[in-house]
Amino acid sequence: MSTFGQFLRVTTYGESHCPSVGCIVDNFPPGIPVSEEILQPQISRRRPGQSSITTPRNEADIVSIQSGVEGGVTLGTPIAMVVKNQDFRPGDYKGSTMKQYPRPSHADFTYLEKYGVRASSGGGRSSARETIGRVAAGALCEHYLKLAHGIEIVAWVSSVGSIHHISPTAEYPCTSHNPKFLQLLSGVTREDVDKTVVRCPDPEVAAQMEKSIADFRDRQDSIGGTVTCVIRNVPTGLGEPVFSKMEAALAQGMLSIPATKGFEIGSGFAGTEIPGSAHNDMFIRNPAPVSEPKNGFAKPKLSTLTNNSGGIQGGITNGAPIYFRVAFKPPATIGLPQQTVTFAGESDGLLEAKGRHDPCVVPRAVPIVESMAAICIMDALMTQGGRRAAALTL
Amino acid sequence: MSTFGQFLRVTTYGESHCPSVGCIVDNFPPGIPVSEEILQPQISRRRPGQSSITTPRNEADIVSIQSGVEGGVTLGTPIAMVVKNQDFRPGDYKGSTMKQYPRPSHADFTYLEKYGVRASSGGGRSSARETIGRVAAGALCEHYLKLAHGIEIVAWVSSVGSIHHISPTAEYPCTSHNPKFLQLLSGVTREDVDKTVVRCPDPEVAAQMEKSIADFRDRQDSIGGTVTCVIRNVPTGLGEPVFSKMEAALAQGMLSIPATKGFEIGSGFAGTEIPGSAHNDMFIRNPAPVSEPKNGFAKPKLSTLTNNSGGIQGGITNGAPIYFRVAFKPPATIGLPQQTVTFAGESDGLLEAKGRHDPCVVPRAVPIVESMAAICIMDALMTQGGRRAAALTL
Amino acid sequence: MSTFGQFLRVTTYGESHCPSVGCIVDNFPPGIPVSEEILQPQISRRRPGQSSITTPRNEADIVSIQSGVEGGVTLGTPIAMVVKNQDFRPGDYKGSTMKQYPRPSHADFTYLEKYGVRASSGGGRSSARETIGRVAAGALCEHYLKLAHGIEIVAWVSSVGSIHHISPTAEYPCTSHNPKFLQLLSGVTREDVDKTVVRCPDPEVAAQMEKSIADFRDRQDSIGGTVTCVIRNVPTGLGEPVFSKMEAALAQGMLSIPATKGFEIGSGFAGTEIPGSAHNDMFIRNPAPVSEPKNGFAKPKLSTLTNNSGGIQGGITNGAPIYFRVAFKPPATIGLPQQTVTFAGESDGLLEAKGRHDPCVVPRAVPIVESMAAICIMDALMTQGGRRAAALTL
Amino acid sequence: MSTFGQFLRVTTYGESHCPSVGCIVDNFPPGIPVSEEILQPQISRRRPGQSSITTPRNEADIVSIQSGVEGGVTLGTPIAMVVKNQDFRPGDYKGSTMKQYPRPSHADFTYLEKYGVRASSGGGRSSARETIGRVAAGALCEHYLKLAHGIEIVAWVSSVGSIHHISPTAEYPCTSHNPKFLQLLSGVTREDVDKTVVRCPDPEVAAQMEKSIADFRDRQDSIGGTVTCVIRNVPTGLGEPVFSKMEAALAQGMLSIPATKGFEIGSGFAGTEIPGSAHNDMFIRNPAPVSEPKNGFAKPKLSTLTNNSGGIQGGITNGAPIYFRVAFKPPATIGLPQQTVTFAGESDGLLEAKGRHDPCVVPRAVPIVESMAAICIMDALMTQGGRRAAALTL
Repeated sequence: MSTFGQFLRVTTYGESHCPSVGCIVDNFPPGIPVSEEILQPQISRRRPGQSSITTPRNEADIVSIQSGVEGGVTLGTPIAMVVKNQDFRPGDYKGSTMKQYPRPSHADFTYLEKYGVRASSGGGRSSARETIGRVAAGALCEHYLKLAHGIEIVAWVSSVGSIHHISPTAEYPCTSHNPKFLQLLSGVTREDVDKTVVRCPDPEVAAQMEKSIADFRDRQDSIGGTVTCVIRNVPTGLGEPVFSKMEAALAQGMLSIPATKGFEIGSGFAGTEIPGSAHNDMFIRNPAPVSEPKNGFAKPKLSTLTNNSGGIQGGITNGAPIYFRVAFKPPATIGLPQQTVTFAGESDGLLEAKGRHDPCVVPRAVPIVESMAAICIMDALMTQGGRRAAALTL
Repeated sequence: MSTFGQFLRVTTYGESHCPSVGCIVDNFPPGIPVSEEILQPQISRRRPGQSSITTPRNEADIVSIQSGVEGGVTLGTPIAMVVKNQDFRPGDYKGSTMKQYPRPSHADFTYLEKYGVRASSGGGRSSARETIGRVAAGALCEHYLKLAHGIEIVAWVSSVGSIHHISPTAEYPCTSHNPKFLQLLSGVTREDVDKTVVRCPDPEVAAQMEKSIADFRDRQDSIGGTVTCVIRNVPTGLGEPVFSKMEAALAQGMLSIPATKGFEIGSGFAGTEIPGSAHNDMFIRNPAPVSEPKNGFAKPKLSTLTNNSGGIQGGITNGAPIYFRVAFKPPATIGLPQQTVTFAGESDGLLEAKGRHDPCVVPRAVPIVESMAAICIMDALMTQGGRRAAALTL
Repeated sequence: MSTFGQFLRVTTYGESHCPSVGCIVDNFPPGIPVSEEILQPQISRRRPGQSSITTPRNEADIVSIQSGVEGGVTLGTPIAMVVKNQDFRPGDYKGSTMKQYPRPSHADFTYLEKYGVRASSGGGRSSARETIGRVAAGALCEHYLKLAHGIEIVAWVSSVGSIHHISPTAEYPCTSHNPKFLQLLSGVTREDVDKTVVRCPDPEVAAQMEKSIADFRDRQDSIGGTVTCVIRNVPTGLGEPVFSKMEAALAQGMLSIPATKGFEIGSGFAGTEIPGSAHNDMFIRNPAPVSEPKNGFAKPKLSTLTNNSGGIQGGITNGAPIYFRVAFKPPATIGLPQQTVTFAGESDGLLEAKGRHDPCVVPRAVPIVESMAAICIMDALMTQGGRRAAALTL
Repeated sequence: MSTFGQFLRVTTYGESHCPSVGCIVDNFPPGIPVSEEILQPQISRRRPGQSSITTPRNEADIVSIQSGVEGGVTLGTPIAMVVKNQDFRPGDYKGSTMKQYPRPSHADFTYLEKYGVRASSGGGRSSARETIGRVAAGALCEHYLKLAHGIEIVAWVSSVGSIHHISPTAEYPCTSHNPKFLQLLSGVTREDVDKTVVRCPDPEVAAQMEKSIADFRDRQDSIGGTVTCVIRNVPTGLGEPVFSKMEAALAQGMLSIPATKGFEIGSGFAGTEIPGSAHNDMFIRNPAPVSEPKNGFAKPKLSTLTNNSGGIQGGITNGAPIYFRVAFKPPATIGLPQQTVTFAGESDGLLEAKGRHDPCVVPRAVPIVESMAAICIMDALMTQGGRRAAALTL
């Protein structure tokens, strides 16, 4: 369905070839200062045409708030946001043979099987443009989270193809123990990430990644990669057992992003290979001074020495940074000719995509991952706020 | 929250130390022959005490249907199912120091932070016993899926620690291309899986896994592993864009299982490292004869030459087998003494778990993974059925 | 919340003083011919300024489809609809003393209590403009229901103040037995209703109603009334026990319309005063020839001699016409001066509304009632369609 | 569907002829002292066999808490509650001709149309036994509401057939202005209500009602009635615009109770007949001293001179008592012979119900109405608590 969240509900609409895309955010708190200027940067970060290694379509995506905000302050009523589809130029795709043939590993075939109707774009809502609504909603949420709890969300490109920013080593087979990685978790900023077009905070690795993407682009091929995301200053107690455990909500959110193939939280798949005695996160007194509760959430008395859990235990946040990694497949649309058959299964053919395509989606996926993370955290935060408000002092 | 699914809704209840655990399944179709005998095998497969490498607690978990079934046939009304908690013997845990100290990487601390109340079991609903309700619901769903569409769901242990059933090779860096793996996808049965206590269908690898688990058990330590699951004969068109894409629903379902740390669908993380030209699944005419529609779903005219997509494109099933892998961390409860501090952060201590614990959860996780998969597929199937029923012939 | 429906989900946004109002309709079936021309008539029917007895604001409300429709056919993806707020002229309200004082029986006070923020319109989403999104969604649904099942939905003004179209009589204390009423149920059309500006199908009664409304208007006062609605050709089996019984869904839908104070289905409150032997609807063979199933729903073999049930038994439709009545209070905003106190409770004052106000809302409520009815029926229809599709032939 | 509520979610299960009926209450706050003793009284109040004017079935309904409570305190996890079906004695119904013929105005026919399956009870979940789960959940909620906010919920029988406790008068055409009624609103207690078996707080009127019910019983006929309910000490700000307005949620809740035909809030249908100038509730300074906030909700600065609104304006509570009236039809099952046809429409017949039936349901409906009210209010309270917790102090 097109709605995400239990308390804070985000509903998106729109596909590639329609007047606009956007969303309605229901149950956003009242009295929060909000403006389009706060939302636009993330919308712009996900836009195509930002560099030579992304699709050259230059979509001037401008977000416009339709409701729920008056005098620069939220009313507590639904916030509708709209971005016009200005630059879809369907002609660009015309020369291709896409109409008769389903594009391999794209959603043309499955959309037709599901809906029995073919949109001109083929894949309907599987289009990356659909994510604009989420980024608008996510930018709103992350603005709130920062204001209310100082929560920081930073994602970056952690691999492109086989080029990994931080690989497992003999000493640290599980990256969650690697000091270099832990330093990133505690310190990396969005500015660090945006220093390179590829959005990897290590300039040297970024240069290799950029070159690799350019090579794939020049060969009319494509390549995948991973995005890692950290969320800092998360209050304890977020995440709803059992089906909306914090990691379950994040997994759903991430796997709902187009082109994703995997999700791992904390130690992840590598964590399955080390013994419990090495994997367990020992409790210690929280070294940070325990401050006054902020907006209802107090700092915890305990923290952990390590963070293989990724900030979540039993589905509930423990106050340590949440971090996770998302796998993105190589984009399905490539310039190389590909064997295929018609939708009716009648004749074979060669499919050659002619349009403007991303050879690698991870640089542009960064703000989308951050946005979905923000929506997940804020939904959990409001739900927990409701519970705590009800857990009365008798 | 404790409800999963949009159309078919499963609500579970219960923790370790309460009279019973169970679930209510709402919107299950009417007129389906159902009995407790059909459900019991999966309940028994997840039970502890099945072998020397699982926890020796012998929980005689007997499922009892409370409602929604009369004369051996479903009424279309909610099906409540209950399993009594007979053998919780809280005394077993008594000698341990668990009460004063939060167990590392367990949910004791986060449950207290979230709810402000301590259940005697510490981790409340994070207990593996909570999964009984899901397995009962899942067994019901998988029974339906088999009857209605011949759908088969088989999960198995694909790794324990660093012992992998099928590892990436130079020839097949991405396991989704490996013929040995593809053969498993098309042929592995639940009988194959249950031949060994460790539930890996390759007896030699299983023996190594079993030995490894026994070693960790003897060292009072624990180890993680992965479970792979295949779903065959899935109709096309299942999965709801955008937030309930088939893989997003599965990811949520899997990450809601206790101790999970990761999920990957199809080519997964390995798929990010190969080019699009190798990753794309070429369309071909469906070699299987296109039969009459069965219960409203026709076989598709096209299939694909490869299946890196894992049976899902654009969030919608394409008729190829769905397969995915789930990471389980090493169990947090180990016999080895561990440094910790009291809940109040006041004094250090050594925690020594005395109870009966699984050194590795993956063998028992197999039916849980299958169950959550069945619930996800059936929910998507009913939703798509509703859409198709409404897409009228004018 | 701002979303209505379990399967077909309608989410609305917008208040009086924002750029636009509208909605997103999720899960509407694919392949249905739809255009703005089909939706506009109902939008226009709810518009103010249609006659001298409604508010003279002339809102040129033009609906614009943003997504989900291509080439005049629905895609199965969310349909977003937008109506610009062109004519809100806040100055019209300026001269009034509304800013300092909460308007009696309006939502100014409760909105401030709930959200802690004051929108310039005072009552935020309680504004009648919010209903535009529902009417757009409802028009879409009623178009589908007509196409797919020949369902007809007609509402009309059944009373204004104490002027009732059909009053209880000695012979028919319960109107549901009155032949004159039964004739209306089976035959009244939207054309009949729209013959008079007051939207009562009996021109003589309509003239009295119109005069009464004009009198209240001239006295700067207001008056309430009731709207009755019939839904014909409803398939059997709609309505979801137990909390979404057909009448429960309709009751929620109707009481969510601004200014409503009551709802009764079938015999309603009067039905509580007659014995069961007179109230029970006897079953007979369906006199209509049992036709082939249409779009999956067959005509029932039985019908009833009377219809005190209002077409619903046990929360489920029985194929007879559904009918219900909705009470609308006299509009709170009147020109007469009213005693009040400031929001802060500090000083008394006189409130005199200066703007343009409806002296009676029922004529304009007619299309809103029809729209909410259409959404309720379509949601129930799609859910039942999903169940029937799943109730397999083994 | 079988789940009610957005934040506090109540899911019920069970029909007449199954091992048990019950519910799962999800998201109930943690740390609340709860025991079965607190819940049992309401369960017992809805039980049949309490007097000669209710059905003589003596169901010893004992509620048993299955989960979510430990050491007499809620854990914050789902609370499952079960009541065994001990005394269904299907033989009692055997002599009747119910099996071949659908009972008029009962749910036998529509359940078969909907589900295609016949439960032995005929009407499946339309059975009054289904309401046990709600009463258990409602008793839990009302216990909380009392503890946390001193909220009182009292319902009573306001009419049986044409015998009304308080009828409209020339002076008070709208009962909401009648001082006798207003006194009830502010003072009636559950003890007052339970003084008579018919549950009308006026003993003289109660005696007439009781006699009337006995007469209908002796004639093997049945009669309807109404239940009025007041909710006192409700905090301001509850109710979620637009589809979960407080009155919309209550309307859904009430119309989901078996045998209900109508709902009116505040002035209701009578309020449509008086002018706005008489209907508007003037604001005044709250005469009650404004106390400290209790559990997060402060007393409002303003109250109203009258309460035609029924404590709700714009869908949001204003702090005045909420009151509403619910219409219950005469029970469909009567001893008098009734003409009918077989399910197949093949032959005519006479239906004579032989079992034990209520001649009037309103006395036993009283605790059911209170329970649904409690669930509605608590759901709205927790949602508003979540919003307020999020409306940060920047």
